[in-house]
Amino acid sequence: MSEYLSKSCKNLTPYVPGEQPRERKYLKLNTNESPFPPSPSVIEAAADAARNLNLYSDPECLSLREKMAARYGIGPENVVMGNGSDEILYFAFKAFADADRPLVFPDVTYGFYPVFADVNGIPYEEIPVGPDFEIDPDDYLVKGKTVVIANPNAPTGRFLPLCEIERIAAFDPERVVIIDEAYVDFGGESAVRLTKKYKNLFVTGTFSKSRSLAGGRLGFGIACKELIEDVNTVRFSFNPYNVNSMTAAAGAAALSDDGYYAKNCRMIMENREYTAEKLEKLGFRVIPSKTNFLFVESNAVDGLTLYRELKKRKILVRHFTSPRTANFNRITVGTLRQMEILLETVRKILEELK
Amino acid sequence: MSEYLSKSCKNLTPYVPGEQPRERKYLKLNTNESPFPPSPSVIEAAADAARNLNLYSDPECLSLREKMAARYGIGPENVVMGNGSDEILYFAFKAFADADRPLVFPDVTYGFYPVFADVNGIPYEEIPVGPDFEIDPDDYLVKGKTVVIANPNAPTGRFLPLCEIERIAAFDPERVVIIDEAYVDFGGESAVRLTKKYKNLFVTGTFSKSRSLAGGRLGFGIACKELIEDVNTVRFSFNPYNVNSMTAAAGAAALSDDGYYAKNCRMIMENREYTAEKLEKLGFRVIPSKTNFLFVESNAVDGLTLYRELKKRKILVRHFTSPRTANFNRITVGTLRQMEILLETVRKILEELK
Repeated sequence: MSEYLSKSCKNLTPYVPGEQPRERKYLKLNTNESPFPPSPSVIEAAADAARNLNLYSDPECLSLREKMAARYGIGPENVVMGNGSDEILYFAFKAFADADRPLVFPDVTYGFYPVFADVNGIPYEEIPVGPDFEIDPDDYLVKGKTVVIANPNAPTGRFLPLCEIERIAAFDPERVVIIDEAYVDFGGESAVRLTKKYKNLFVTGTFSKSRSLAGGRLGFGIACKELIEDVNTVRFSFNPYNVNSMTAAAGAAALSDDGYYAKNCRMIMENREYTAEKLEKLGFRVIPSKTNFLFVESNAVDGLTLYRELKKRKILVRHFTSPRTANFNRITVGTLRQMEILLETVRKILEELK
Repeated sequence: MSEYLSKSCKNLTPYVPGEQPRERKYLKLNTNESPFPPSPSVIEAAADAARNLNLYSDPECLSLREKMAARYGIGPENVVMGNGSDEILYFAFKAFADADRPLVFPDVTYGFYPVFADVNGIPYEEIPVGPDFEIDPDDYLVKGKTVVIANPNAPTGRFLPLCEIERIAAFDPERVVIIDEAYVDFGGESAVRLTKKYKNLFVTGTFSKSRSLAGGRLGFGIACKELIEDVNTVRFSFNPYNVNSMTAAAGAAALSDDGYYAKNCRMIMENREYTAEKLEKLGFRVIPSKTNFLFVESNAVDGLTLYRELKKRKILVRHFTSPRTANFNRITVGTLRQMEILLETVRKILEELK
């Protein structure tokens, strides 16, 4: 830290992303990437766009938003695109929360929420999830607070049915409810259609997971026109050209290849159920997941040790150090072959530690 | 605006980027894009990276930063990469300025500075430039204020010699001096080497202009290790994966093609001098420029009328409406052929208006 860092930044605890080893020697099951490459037409569209990189990207992202509108049954005026959904969440926090409307979110959830709050000086309250990491919707029937819920939640994988999201949105129309649907395509149900009924509902999503575009950085927010305009006020005060033209083209092409990505999601979901069953047989507690990861706790080895033993054997999973999650690991669901390697390695570790 | 927009955002006046018509029918001389495409190896590198978009980009941008280090004679620890230099400037404002250390910058300069200040609640003072838009370095010999100077300045094109930048940096080592070098490759002189001597000096740059990568979004900050760490504190509290993997690969390839880009810059500079001379002959006042644009005022037609007449004839230039600049237009310097079309069209407009 230099002597120049501003007061408000001095106490920031930045987010720590999952390890991204530059060598390819690891089986990476730690950052919820898709094991499947983007579809050929996505690669082609990005490569094509690279020829015109001397020209700025479209700050309105219009053709991509038109495709989003067709795909999600909304209007182009109901969607804003971002450099990953992290950016959209940052904008939405800034737009819809402040000291007068503090944030409220679960205590076990995406680690970026408290960071986004801190960096913008927004107070927040963390509501404890239940013993099985379940979110109690009644906890969010509060007035005057901006609610943020990842649904399905990360790193737990737990999903709240749409009727509960609706109950939360309906409870206090005076404040915004932000639903982060980064993982919704793996068996969840999207709240997008509720944005037509509730003008205080802001839904975010990403192309990183189900659409194999983590390295491209593409996220979105969907809501009524007025909320989107507000987020655009922040976006145009920060970086109007936030989505580069290759990624915009790749995203549009991905939306035309829904079949390819839906099939990949189905495979991930099958592999998830298979892996969950096998891990349970190995004595693991597996939190029910509607995502492309499993949040698991062994009855034989603590979370940190398992993480380290797997890493020694060239498998990366994600370990979080907070007290409630330290005994768990979050394991990305990959191909069946990757899952077999994981299971075999876990079996060996448990044997050796006996 | 919705009823939910936070107080601090309600009064924001977002930046207005130059028009980006989606039809290609215009000769675009309004956003300082390069008329030259990226080099073939850049296009190839980006296309190659598209194959692995299912994996996250490297949040450390290490291989790109190593190339930057070799190119600029610094260490990888002295550089941070951003989603355009706008993002880097936003981070730097947040890191190095606040109510205790307000910002100071010229009254005629990059329109994003006051916006970045407002969105982060940072007070600022605008110092009037001279009658020929010249910056008086003595104005910035102030204590306790974070200085921001675009050098060369936009939209004027004026350049401050390095010895003056050094004088400003040296005057008060207690505060940071941010030098925005978006246009430095068109005849200016970079302050990067001064960052070794002055630990309060933060230099930003972009690949958008001289390196034909506007659509890829790639910018950077160069400074002593401690200032870079501070900016990374903000970056990791916002969007650690801010640079997508295609752009990172494209940027690294561009750094290996310095010869191609240097040649393009020389052509732009030649075309700039040629166009300036011709415009002066047509009765224009042309502000001396070390950039890829000319800031010009006609003795026969006001700025807004000229902008409109050019637009009618399918040429876009940039017109700014603030009182000091309203009679001017900023014209991007393109190929010689593009400049001939511009000059011919201006000639016709002046004829018709007689």
